[in-house]
Amino acid sequence: MDPDAVAKAFVEHYYSTFDANRAGLATLYQDGSMLTFEGQKIMGSQNIVAKLTGLPFQQCQHQISTVDCQPSGPAGGMLVFVSGNLQLAGEQHALKFSQMFQLMPTAQGSLFVLNDIFRLNYA
Amino acid sequence: MDPDAVAKAFVEHYYSTFDANRAGLATLYQDGSMLTFEGQKIMGSQNIVAKLTGLPFQQCQHQISTVDCQPSGPAGGMLVFVSGNLQLAGEQHALKFSQMFQLMPTAQGSLFVLNDIFRLNYA
Repeated sequence: MDPDAVAKAFVEHYYSTFDANRAGLATLYQDGSMLTFEGQKIMGSQNIVAKLTGLPFQQCQHQISTVDCQPSGPAGGMLVFVSGNLQLAGEQHALKFSQMFQLMPTAQGSLFVLNDIFRLNYA
Repeated sequence: MDPDAVAKAFVEHYYSTFDANRAGLATLYQDGSMLTFEGQKIMGSQNIVAKLTGLPFQQCQHQISTVDCQPSGPAGGMLVFVSGNLQLAGEQHALKFSQMFQLMPTAQGSLFVLNDIFRLNYA
């Protein structure tokens, strides 16, 4: 399958899950997964989802501006780089963000997030 | 050595070389290196440096806002995620950018850029 199409499908799935049911992201991470969220380092699916579900807003909507991807090494990994806007409920202005993922194949042939780095882009 | 310190040292070296002598970046890439620059995919040190030296501005200055890093897989790689501002000579306003690198160890024990994805963050 076309890597760009895989990356785009992953990104759409990730952010639609984030916006509808953040706890549902647990299936996309594993015990060895790493998240760096605004500089805070968190490891493991359970801790990562606790961080994401504990963010101090209830409703949000991600709007994707760009998705870039590259293959990553011989193990079938993929690097995905996203830029976009994050609209929080009740806020007038959207926040710009950038995020990168390294996706790796699972034993079942799907993909999981091994690495995840998120930053807001302040104006 | 502390991975965060390695990442920060790499980032400072990369952008100071970019701003002073873009052709000098050639030593940081190898034949298998990949750059995605504003969506354009380029492969190999020679092509990458040709792209960077051919950008339509002469003088520029990168100012780094954030540097995040994570280990990447068993081969000793490192993911580095940067956000910052890019000031072009003669332009009033700086451009915001985000960039990610995957660094891999060389046979000589230093690091080279295997993956590089660059995006401007338009307001």
